[in-house]
Amino acid sequence: MSDLLGFSNETFTNFAFYSGLVLSKTLIMGPLTSMFRGRNKVFVNPEDVKRFAAPGTALTASDPTVERIRRCHQNDLENVVPFTLIGLLYVSADPDPDRAINIFRIFAASRFLHTASYLLPLPQPSRATCFIVGWGATAAMAFFVIARTTFFK
Amino acid sequence: MSDLLGFSNETFTNFAFYSGLVLSKTLIMGPLTSMFRGRNKVFVNPEDVKRFAAPGTALTASDPTVERIRRCHQNDLENVVPFTLIGLLYVSADPDPDRAINIFRIFAASRFLHTASYLLPLPQPSRATCFIVGWGATAAMAFFVIARTTFFK
Amino acid sequence: MSDLLGFSNETFTNFAFYSGLVLSKTLIMGPLTSMFRGRNKVFVNPEDVKRFAAPGTALTASDPTVERIRRCHQNDLENVVPFTLIGLLYVSADPDPDRAINIFRIFAASRFLHTASYLLPLPQPSRATCFIVGWGATAAMAFFVIARTTFFK
Repeated sequence: MSDLLGFSNETFTNFAFYSGLVLSKTLIMGPLTSMFRGRNKVFVNPEDVKRFAAPGTALTASDPTVERIRRCHQNDLENVVPFTLIGLLYVSADPDPDRAINIFRIFAASRFLHTASYLLPLPQPSRATCFIVGWGATAAMAFFVIARTTFFK
Repeated sequence: MSDLLGFSNETFTNFAFYSGLVLSKTLIMGPLTSMFRGRNKVFVNPEDVKRFAAPGTALTASDPTVERIRRCHQNDLENVVPFTLIGLLYVSADPDPDRAINIFRIFAASRFLHTASYLLPLPQPSRATCFIVGWGATAAMAFFVIARTTFFK
Repeated sequence: MSDLLGFSNETFTNFAFYSGLVLSKTLIMGPLTSMFRGRNKVFVNPEDVKRFAAPGTALTASDPTVERIRRCHQNDLENVVPFTLIGLLYVSADPDPDRAINIFRIFAASRFLHTASYLLPLPQPSRATCFIVGWGATAAMAFFVIARTTFFK
């Protein structure tokens, strides 16, 4: 039972790998937003215009590409962060390793496909399906954690 | 002192239960937003309109109900996520179990009441009070963690 | 190898200290937003106007100061939260303590300077530099975690 939250536990190692991947993907959205802000000259701060744009560039001009990347980033914050938090509690609840690793894989795949669906974009319901699958993976872990704490303690 | 972050520690079990509850509540805000986007036909992406709305439906029409749910969701991200992160550090700092469990309960109750205050909505200062109580619970844990690392190491 | 995620591990103690600091800084952005909403009378909810403003105050009037604080808060959520999550996995991967503590210090310093750059504001590229340094610290830890799980298991 000891050291469940450590690399000696295969479930934890897999959790670290897949959550490391999806968190890295989330991290990339920030610089991607900045890149498109620079390329499309879409700035929200006067000091950004002063440094990164030609004099006279307008402020807060909304740009569809920038806003799309930001919505995708926000969706990651709303889903990848709860996955990682609930996942840590889930791993510490010592779940069946095979089932746990499958949940991590399904979640990671669904989030990479969600980003592709959002940024290309692919026709709906691609993005909606990816969202629901990833959401279900997290919800299943949350249910397991809550059940573990109330029924088995 | 070992195994503080595991289900053999009653403080951890309670933390897992209450943070599992508030994270689940946060998770529900996403589909709730989607549901009201569908019901009120408020879409921000062209591909969503194409699939989920009648031809000719306008884009990015802002809707008060959808925006209210989104602000409530955002407030959860700003408060429930820091609670869970600081809470993990706090549990690993081996606090007094009774005090810890009370902090978790107060936080969880304040966030469920915050959501009710925001979505019904209840007259202010209901929502402000819930916010401050939950914020105080997290801040108290953060203070304990920082004090533990500097004064007792 | 045991008890990596505990206060007996100096790397963890330092992680708890620095992530406690940056999470506390993030927490402060919420009440700071509320304070400037009250001072500048910028409310998004009808029930807030009813309670906190003179009768007839307009809704959703956007205010540059409030929006600036909110963007700074959002940037924290996008960077401090992934840092803490990846940091926990990183500490559990048993990194070199000196290098790890330096990464935590660099990240914490970069985020405090980022907030100062954003709120004063300082001329660019101050804020951009702080963002990149903090981002790099988190990315380095993420790389270490993923490498640890695939190459050494």
